[in-house]
Amino acid sequence: MTHQNTPERKDLQPLPKPKKEQVGYAVLGIGALTIDELLPAFAVGQRSKLAAVVSDDHEKAVATALAYGLTEADAYDYDRFEELQSRADVHAVYIVLPNTLHREYTERAAKIGKHVLSEKPLAGNLEDAEAMVRVCAEHGVKLMTAYRCQYTPHHWRARDLIQNGDLGRIKLIHSVNVQLETDPDQWRLKDKLAGGGSLLDVGLYCLNTIRFLLAEEPSEVYAQTYSTPDDERFKEVEETVAWQMTFPSGVIAQCICSYGASHTRSLDVFGTDARMTLDPAFDYTDLRLNVQTPETVTEHLLPEMDQFALEIDHFSACIEEDRQPFTPGEEGLQDQKLMAAIYQSAREGRPIKLEKMEKKDAFRGSPPNQDFAERA
Amino acid sequence: MTHQNTPERKDLQPLPKPKKEQVGYAVLGIGALTIDELLPAFAVGQRSKLAAVVSDDHEKAVATALAYGLTEADAYDYDRFEELQSRADVHAVYIVLPNTLHREYTERAAKIGKHVLSEKPLAGNLEDAEAMVRVCAEHGVKLMTAYRCQYTPHHWRARDLIQNGDLGRIKLIHSVNVQLETDPDQWRLKDKLAGGGSLLDVGLYCLNTIRFLLAEEPSEVYAQTYSTPDDERFKEVEETVAWQMTFPSGVIAQCICSYGASHTRSLDVFGTDARMTLDPAFDYTDLRLNVQTPETVTEHLLPEMDQFALEIDHFSACIEEDRQPFTPGEEGLQDQKLMAAIYQSAREGRPIKLEKMEKKDAFRGSPPNQDFAERA
Amino acid sequence: MTHQNTPERKDLQPLPKPKKEQVGYAVLGIGALTIDELLPAFAVGQRSKLAAVVSDDHEKAVATALAYGLTEADAYDYDRFEELQSRADVHAVYIVLPNTLHREYTERAAKIGKHVLSEKPLAGNLEDAEAMVRVCAEHGVKLMTAYRCQYTPHHWRARDLIQNGDLGRIKLIHSVNVQLETDPDQWRLKDKLAGGGSLLDVGLYCLNTIRFLLAEEPSEVYAQTYSTPDDERFKEVEETVAWQMTFPSGVIAQCICSYGASHTRSLDVFGTDARMTLDPAFDYTDLRLNVQTPETVTEHLLPEMDQFALEIDHFSACIEEDRQPFTPGEEGLQDQKLMAAIYQSAREGRPIKLEKMEKKDAFRGSPPNQDFAERA
Amino acid sequence: MTHQNTPERKDLQPLPKPKKEQVGYAVLGIGALTIDELLPAFAVGQRSKLAAVVSDDHEKAVATALAYGLTEADAYDYDRFEELQSRADVHAVYIVLPNTLHREYTERAAKIGKHVLSEKPLAGNLEDAEAMVRVCAEHGVKLMTAYRCQYTPHHWRARDLIQNGDLGRIKLIHSVNVQLETDPDQWRLKDKLAGGGSLLDVGLYCLNTIRFLLAEEPSEVYAQTYSTPDDERFKEVEETVAWQMTFPSGVIAQCICSYGASHTRSLDVFGTDARMTLDPAFDYTDLRLNVQTPETVTEHLLPEMDQFALEIDHFSACIEEDRQPFTPGEEGLQDQKLMAAIYQSAREGRPIKLEKMEKKDAFRGSPPNQDFAERA
Repeated sequence: MTHQNTPERKDLQPLPKPKKEQVGYAVLGIGALTIDELLPAFAVGQRSKLAAVVSDDHEKAVATALAYGLTEADAYDYDRFEELQSRADVHAVYIVLPNTLHREYTERAAKIGKHVLSEKPLAGNLEDAEAMVRVCAEHGVKLMTAYRCQYTPHHWRARDLIQNGDLGRIKLIHSVNVQLETDPDQWRLKDKLAGGGSLLDVGLYCLNTIRFLLAEEPSEVYAQTYSTPDDERFKEVEETVAWQMTFPSGVIAQCICSYGASHTRSLDVFGTDARMTLDPAFDYTDLRLNVQTPETVTEHLLPEMDQFALEIDHFSACIEEDRQPFTPGEEGLQDQKLMAAIYQSAREGRPIKLEKMEKKDAFRGSPPNQDFAERA
Repeated sequence: MTHQNTPERKDLQPLPKPKKEQVGYAVLGIGALTIDELLPAFAVGQRSKLAAVVSDDHEKAVATALAYGLTEADAYDYDRFEELQSRADVHAVYIVLPNTLHREYTERAAKIGKHVLSEKPLAGNLEDAEAMVRVCAEHGVKLMTAYRCQYTPHHWRARDLIQNGDLGRIKLIHSVNVQLETDPDQWRLKDKLAGGGSLLDVGLYCLNTIRFLLAEEPSEVYAQTYSTPDDERFKEVEETVAWQMTFPSGVIAQCICSYGASHTRSLDVFGTDARMTLDPAFDYTDLRLNVQTPETVTEHLLPEMDQFALEIDHFSACIEEDRQPFTPGEEGLQDQKLMAAIYQSAREGRPIKLEKMEKKDAFRGSPPNQDFAERA
Repeated sequence: MTHQNTPERKDLQPLPKPKKEQVGYAVLGIGALTIDELLPAFAVGQRSKLAAVVSDDHEKAVATALAYGLTEADAYDYDRFEELQSRADVHAVYIVLPNTLHREYTERAAKIGKHVLSEKPLAGNLEDAEAMVRVCAEHGVKLMTAYRCQYTPHHWRARDLIQNGDLGRIKLIHSVNVQLETDPDQWRLKDKLAGGGSLLDVGLYCLNTIRFLLAEEPSEVYAQTYSTPDDERFKEVEETVAWQMTFPSGVIAQCICSYGASHTRSLDVFGTDARMTLDPAFDYTDLRLNVQTPETVTEHLLPEMDQFALEIDHFSACIEEDRQPFTPGEEGLQDQKLMAAIYQSAREGRPIKLEKMEKKDAFRGSPPNQDFAERA
Repeated sequence: MTHQNTPERKDLQPLPKPKKEQVGYAVLGIGALTIDELLPAFAVGQRSKLAAVVSDDHEKAVATALAYGLTEADAYDYDRFEELQSRADVHAVYIVLPNTLHREYTERAAKIGKHVLSEKPLAGNLEDAEAMVRVCAEHGVKLMTAYRCQYTPHHWRARDLIQNGDLGRIKLIHSVNVQLETDPDQWRLKDKLAGGGSLLDVGLYCLNTIRFLLAEEPSEVYAQTYSTPDDERFKEVEETVAWQMTFPSGVIAQCICSYGASHTRSLDVFGTDARMTLDPAFDYTDLRLNVQTPETVTEHLLPEMDQFALEIDHFSACIEEDRQPFTPGEEGLQDQKLMAAIYQSAREGRPIKLEKMEKKDAFRGSPPNQDFAERA
């Protein structure tokens, strides 16, 4: 019955709403992410609950439903997806499928009036992403890109430090997201399912988090891709992308993503007064945030919270209060445009100019700190 | 849809059992620990579920029940505790009450045939602890002391490094558990409710974890207590205890616990080949384990798991498989004896000899790694 | 009379040679680097001694000479530089002058038969660098580029880890060297004295160390430069350079250097099995070397040695034993070529192809570990 | 020609005094400490120079003299010690001999009018220490105990943080100094030469640094000693001492020293507002100072300076300006008294009360920051 070194959760998270009143989700896809992260996140969420599971593997779907207190009747296969329409307790779907399937299920969900939370990247390509935003608008359902890293205490502290000027004027950023994919048969390495390689999967974190931290959009990119010759894993999708981005404020950012090296996820921001480091920057737990000046290196101790629960609960809050999510479809769509430009630069071996955006947070909706404000 | 730097949970924890088949608990007491830690732990547990809550604050009890998918009927007050007897889905109670109340509710639970998981310390004093062990034996129910730190990946890795000789021969240990208690009115500072001061609450972690790591029992203690003069917080219970323990193997351990300093929870083990450091050592999250030799300092990256869920699931496994818990009442009782000796040494200003134990892990039951073995 | 945690120096450095038999140096320039680092380095060197100082500030030169046990007669001004010819105890000069002066004093030293150790960069431009290599060859004197980071225990351990395959196959590298230059009047910001901006001064560390670690030469570069508009400090030389390099082995390296952000000097290497981090990577003291795998992060504890003494003593060993220095003029010249290509890429906004080198360590001489071998 | 991350030395240390005007030392004893640390320290000192060496090993003495620019005539053996009297350039002796020889050479030095800097511990026993203080007073020479850790930037920053209240009210301290002595034949393990075991050698650091940080003297000690049975290394002197000290302010300190475990040198201070950690705390280089609050952990980056040079230069400043050294013989003598009480407590198995001191810094002289004040 003691307290912990890291700040306590209770200051941030009261008792959840009654389960019956929570926003209900149908989860599509029961892979490792769903089992290891999303189902526990729903279990501890403040205002979000698992209401149904959808999978081709009926036995697994039933086991999952029962494990979390649902019934066999809550397990659906994809053919019966539209039956969810009649489920008043299913307010939204959480799409946890291979990238190129996001569009189809977004369209099917929109048509039956369910809100859509889509895993990142928003889609397997730019056209699909545009279609997803469009269809949700047409059917009056909300669409949110599951950008976990725009909802955690560490990333918000990092953004606040930058936006409040604690690092001085920002000059440079560097970010890495690499991991080792060893199984040549997995869907991430199949172009038809993934729509691209390391950029769409892990490089997207660098891209997205830098945009979030700076609240501005890049004006130019230069990129190189590389795949180890004769490596059967990288026949269809790229192994590595290294790119540079310039921002209107003068910030230059360098990023590396890869499927071919031992995992590292880090982000460094260099300001006139201080350097800020997130390392690990994108992990599910144990993020570490340091600020280094000429005299000191300071680690910020922040509470360890379920990052997925924070993300999902934000969407629930937006559904309940009819707000635009902080990372709506438009936010995911913008990354899709930038990734298309990155691929183009690599193909053509030259820098690519991008459309100029004046507005801060040009594609973002209501910030997650309002989730609590509304409840107070 | 990425992996994380820290090892993944899925390797250790499959999909939970069907909720209906999980071991059901009635939780007694709805303070911060229950709300912030235990209820989320039940929600993500593999084989343990919340089945009822007991509190004098009926409104809070109902809110808690509803928040986690139970009904108003699952909220009890203490007068109605015995009604739990008829609840077939309540297999055990988890006592999260002030120390001196542990005995009463253990006795009442045993009498209605419910297993007992008691928060630490086992009781407010040695006599109560002995009575608790006795009554559970008499009624054929299991009693487990909720020693979270004997169930985590970090503490087991630490124990393995010691027991496997990776640090060489162990010579010295030092451990600190201090925190700042600022509210003079809280129950921890009232002798009638707490039965003692910082030793029973936070010092117990040092004592218990050292015994766990070494698997042996101390043969002598010397202790000093200290309370800041005229500090109203420490009129009834001690602020600080500093003590030394000698073990039959020759290991000397020094420990400090206090309610009067900024929180620190650390443990250092000094062997002939290496030093091992857990810092933080007893927090709920973000434990860090380092091994230092003359050439290197190595941090062991271990998965971030819900420590309370691991602890509770162990008790459930023991109930289901009729095994003795790894930290049964007897384990908690032994600490109670040692704490009594520590207080005696401080009172009398002299070292106190302790009963010699030859047996390794003298008071412990079946280790938690068997929980998974049984399921395989 | 104890030992230290970090490995001891005695294992590496025996008693110095008799001072009289040590290789004598005339130091040209008495700025901060000379006073703070080089003079102490000579004082603790194993086989190198200060024999004369050259400066326009006669009073400072005399004070310096006397402080280190020399006489007033050992203090020269630049006009009297050629008088050093007759000094049999002056075997070499150490040029610690603004970049664009390196050539003149190398030529004057070569003509009077003195070996030359030149601070980095080798020269203010490519043409000068080529002239320096040429003139030293013509006069049969040795020329060494003062690349401190190719002589320290940390950088050699890093290179060994890479070359021995401990990180697996190397895929990616990232390096940063930024610092804040606040005085607009200093010589580093004057094109006539510096010959360039942050690239020549600090970016060179990234470039040079990566080449050293990989032992291969880049085949392509792409670069961008940036100077904050209307910042008077960066009217003549560039503030920031961000560049990418491709190596024949497939390694992609990203680098950032700047005069406009709070100092950071780091280097990360990403291999298939592990990530290696030097952070700080280029400081004079307290370098930290870590290797991270999925299971552990290991800091390598290496002895804190005077990095400048190691560098200077290597040149002395080469002079005494008539060996080619590990970082001869040719090594400095190659960086000068690469920096010219980096500037060209930035000017032309396109990647620049480079001459292909097959040979490993194509421009390096006898490694410093032979310094000790020769003496054994 | 760059700056370093860690603060630069130049801000603290200008050009040394002319070598001829520096205070000259005869060093007695040429073991590892002399060769690896003290001779380099003299070489870079600001106002201290090596003037003579004294050893029974004439060849080594000559090699040492020549290595540092002295002549064969500067090498003495112990029989000729008194000849130093006529050396006007030898102002002081630095005694780097086994503990029990400190007294004899202090007496002989005092008699020939040379100031004495004695390695720690001041003597092999209390009686010798008292005699040393007495004889130096009688002959009007200064006596300083070589307590390096009272002269470094890290230890002064630590003291300032405590004395300025940055940690709140100090409640607890813990310190460890252990190392592995493997050679049973070395003098440290011979009672006749060492006068004691790990306490006199390494435990003294804990004792002395805690007294320095708090500026007060302990009022009670309780100690246990332990030597592994049948370990031939610890037949004459103790392996391990674990002790507790109480201070008049209420601070409780625990310390462990040992010759039997892998080296660790650390010190933790627990205040009401923050925890301060020095780890390593007593190494010659790479000290690390951290301050931890509930919200942050902050490492203080301080310049890496030659700790021995700082210590020696302080003694030189005191000689030149006729000031009492900050750590005079009396400071070493006080530790000797405390160590005698620690041994007594361990022998008698009971706490020992100590003489009460009201005065702050009761045994210390003029602080080293005055060394610079005087020169300004």
